[in-house]
Amino acid sequence: MTTRQTTTACYSAQVRCRIVKEPGSLAAVLTAIGEAGGQMGVIDLVDSDNKCTVRDLTVQAASAEHLEKIIQAIETVPSATVLNWHDQVFQHHQGGKIEIHNKMNLNSRDALSIAYTPGVARVCMAIHQDRDRAHDLTIKKNTVAVVSDGTAVLGLGDIGPEAAMPVMEGKAMLFKKFGGVDAWPICLATKDVDEIVRTVELLAPGFGGINLEDISAPRCFEIEQRLIEKLDIPVFHDDQHGTAVVFMAALINSLKIVGKKVENLRAVVSGAGAAGMACTKIMYNFGVRQIAVLDRTGIIYKGRKDGMNASKQWFAEHTNPEGLKGGIAEAARGADLYLGVSGPGAFPLEALKTMAPDAIVFALSNPEPEIRPEVARPHVRIMGTGRSDFPNQINNVLGFPGIFRGALDVRATAINDEMKMAAARAIAGVIADDELDEECIIPTVFNDRIAVEVSRAVKEAALATGVARLKA
Amino acid sequence: MTTRQTTTACYSAQVRCRIVKEPGSLAAVLTAIGEAGGQMGVIDLVDSDNKCTVRDLTVQAASAEHLEKIIQAIETVPSATVLNWHDQVFQHHQGGKIEIHNKMNLNSRDALSIAYTPGVARVCMAIHQDRDRAHDLTIKKNTVAVVSDGTAVLGLGDIGPEAAMPVMEGKAMLFKKFGGVDAWPICLATKDVDEIVRTVELLAPGFGGINLEDISAPRCFEIEQRLIEKLDIPVFHDDQHGTAVVFMAALINSLKIVGKKVENLRAVVSGAGAAGMACTKIMYNFGVRQIAVLDRTGIIYKGRKDGMNASKQWFAEHTNPEGLKGGIAEAARGADLYLGVSGPGAFPLEALKTMAPDAIVFALSNPEPEIRPEVARPHVRIMGTGRSDFPNQINNVLGFPGIFRGALDVRATAINDEMKMAAARAIAGVIADDELDEECIIPTVFNDRIAVEVSRAVKEAALATGVARLKA
Repeated sequence: MTTRQTTTACYSAQVRCRIVKEPGSLAAVLTAIGEAGGQMGVIDLVDSDNKCTVRDLTVQAASAEHLEKIIQAIETVPSATVLNWHDQVFQHHQGGKIEIHNKMNLNSRDALSIAYTPGVARVCMAIHQDRDRAHDLTIKKNTVAVVSDGTAVLGLGDIGPEAAMPVMEGKAMLFKKFGGVDAWPICLATKDVDEIVRTVELLAPGFGGINLEDISAPRCFEIEQRLIEKLDIPVFHDDQHGTAVVFMAALINSLKIVGKKVENLRAVVSGAGAAGMACTKIMYNFGVRQIAVLDRTGIIYKGRKDGMNASKQWFAEHTNPEGLKGGIAEAARGADLYLGVSGPGAFPLEALKTMAPDAIVFALSNPEPEIRPEVARPHVRIMGTGRSDFPNQINNVLGFPGIFRGALDVRATAINDEMKMAAARAIAGVIADDELDEECIIPTVFNDRIAVEVSRAVKEAALATGVARLKA
Repeated sequence: MTTRQTTTACYSAQVRCRIVKEPGSLAAVLTAIGEAGGQMGVIDLVDSDNKCTVRDLTVQAASAEHLEKIIQAIETVPSATVLNWHDQVFQHHQGGKIEIHNKMNLNSRDALSIAYTPGVARVCMAIHQDRDRAHDLTIKKNTVAVVSDGTAVLGLGDIGPEAAMPVMEGKAMLFKKFGGVDAWPICLATKDVDEIVRTVELLAPGFGGINLEDISAPRCFEIEQRLIEKLDIPVFHDDQHGTAVVFMAALINSLKIVGKKVENLRAVVSGAGAAGMACTKIMYNFGVRQIAVLDRTGIIYKGRKDGMNASKQWFAEHTNPEGLKGGIAEAARGADLYLGVSGPGAFPLEALKTMAPDAIVFALSNPEPEIRPEVARPHVRIMGTGRSDFPNQINNVLGFPGIFRGALDVRATAINDEMKMAAARAIAGVIADDELDEECIIPTVFNDRIAVEVSRAVKEAALATGVARLKA
């Protein structure tokens, strides 16, 4: 019997079996699966005759190897034959995960002459005479390009534009599902900053916004900044600002629970990459000043020479006013907040134990956090991760769909700091004061109110700060 | 009473009227519309109470001004009040004409973990290890970029990338409707050949094919040629080759009717742009040699100095072996075939009358052909245009959806001459010999068999010529 492992939908299969009709034959199959450590899901009946039934069994495993072992276990059952089986993850990716639908039927010549020639010419000329009408009369109204160069995909690193596509398609699905936004993946076959900037600039006419994704730091900072200056549509690097907005929402609600004041807060940020930069800046804008940011060299301080660059210089000048030096041990001592945006195991328990009372720990490295929640939990007041299988999941999908929904609805020229902070407050506000507790500082992704509240708040902030071109 | 004009769906409105309930009140409204020259379509009942009904009346007019006159005429009817009205063409373009759909539901955490993190990472790594798998595991399998710079949009000329979007969206709809292909419009904010080539090259990883559209000649030739050399997916400039394929289909069937031999055929091509080039080349590949190609300067011949460029040099060297000089009068005399891909009225009736017996005339300028079919018809055996309101519509939509369907299905690296000719023969073959006559040389766009036959023929030709990466 296999050692029990945690099974997951990420390693699941649909197994089609022919099973002889005799008492206990299905039970024998399920027993074999159970003994192999597989978790049963749906059982569908596909076909049946006098002698046999054909069934589709959905089974979860702990790994690809485990999945194959479970299939082998089924094959050893004398009354069952495996006809075929499909890895669910790969099956759902066959041919990609998004497709295009026509918004009107083309079943008649009249319809063709409205949607295409000759009728379309009137619409073209209306836009030619007033380019702003493209925002109403084309897909630009509701469309975002999800742009990546495949250099920093999930935790996988620089895997190239083709291999990045499944993530960008998934992102497009989240845009549609949670924000009603039509997002199209654009994965670029270059890592050159100038070429990426120019390419996005050239393809911008057909899009209402640009979501940069999984572009490695520090290139992502320059690409985003240059595109913001060149384009009159929002440019938003989600790995930075999406993470920052949702982290900020979690912090706002956590501070309500621990009752600490922003101006006195001592924070540690582990990781000085894209997310670390944006989270630090949004905290800074919120009023937090005592922030110790750590990179691989250690705490960043004014005057540090090793491993610096332009973006780290910003940390040196704006954070760590006490000039703390050292590593995680020095940074964590007496800290009220730990934010991990670095990598697995970066936060040792010994360091955590030296934090101030009522400590808040957000360990966002995914899937393996900076410290395991079951290890940290007994020593802190609030624990959050990026994982869906623990409480307080700090997940970007709470942010970007509603943020772009709001920006597109008022035809915003940018997504500015005020809009980001408004989004954070809106996400935090979805949790009512009487629902708020240590295990519930942030809503779950399936809460329908999130995108509605976020987009409303973002629209108001866009209007208040003069970046909205529409009053809608 | 207004002079009767030809009404069209391109100038139609949905007019919402409140009409007093009394005998003859609706008739009075319809009489007013009729007297103003409007054509009634659907009449929907929206609401009704004791005193009034509210109805949506769909009305066709001959022009935008005519439409407004019809509305004014309704407003003069005492028993009716116009509540609002919408220009149907603009109404159907609100927010664009295509949208994205998710191919799987994201209603559970399991679904999220399959379509996005962490499950998606397995698919990314599979592609990272074998880049070819992008053709199966991403939208690349079924996706085409419709790329334009907006320099030669319909007959409207250089109207810019934003104004070109409605045409490219319409093209994407045709791809989906007739070929089941997911096409996405990319309109570029540059006219620079190098930049266009580089941009398309950089965004190619996420697409299975590139359809170039409405790019002005001669730039389109260089852009297409350079992209064909750089990319391992099909690059197809539809204004050239789509037109050529469908023209060729019409010619194949026309020759069956007139019974003339290809090698003896005398042809005139009016227009030396993108379509003229491709139609001449496909005819040449088919065996036609005596072709007189006209540009604004006149017939192109070997040794001509005025108004030449690299692409016109090709005509000088390959066509017109007799060295004809002059204009349309000289070119048309004794010709068996006239192909117009130039502009309205380019073919005078006097010239047409000098053609050989059983003349074939394809006047493809749209919406206004080189010669009006009702003027030409009495003097020729076969008459075709690009218009849907006359017989023998030579329409690109007969070609490109099936051509790309076939190319994507076998993962072709190119769409070569053999595949184009196969597509032409397949389109021609949809008309059975007993259906074939002077008014029916080519199928209509709503014939379901076209894309099926074209894609099958294209696949076979791709396999036979070694450009298919799959045997499917």
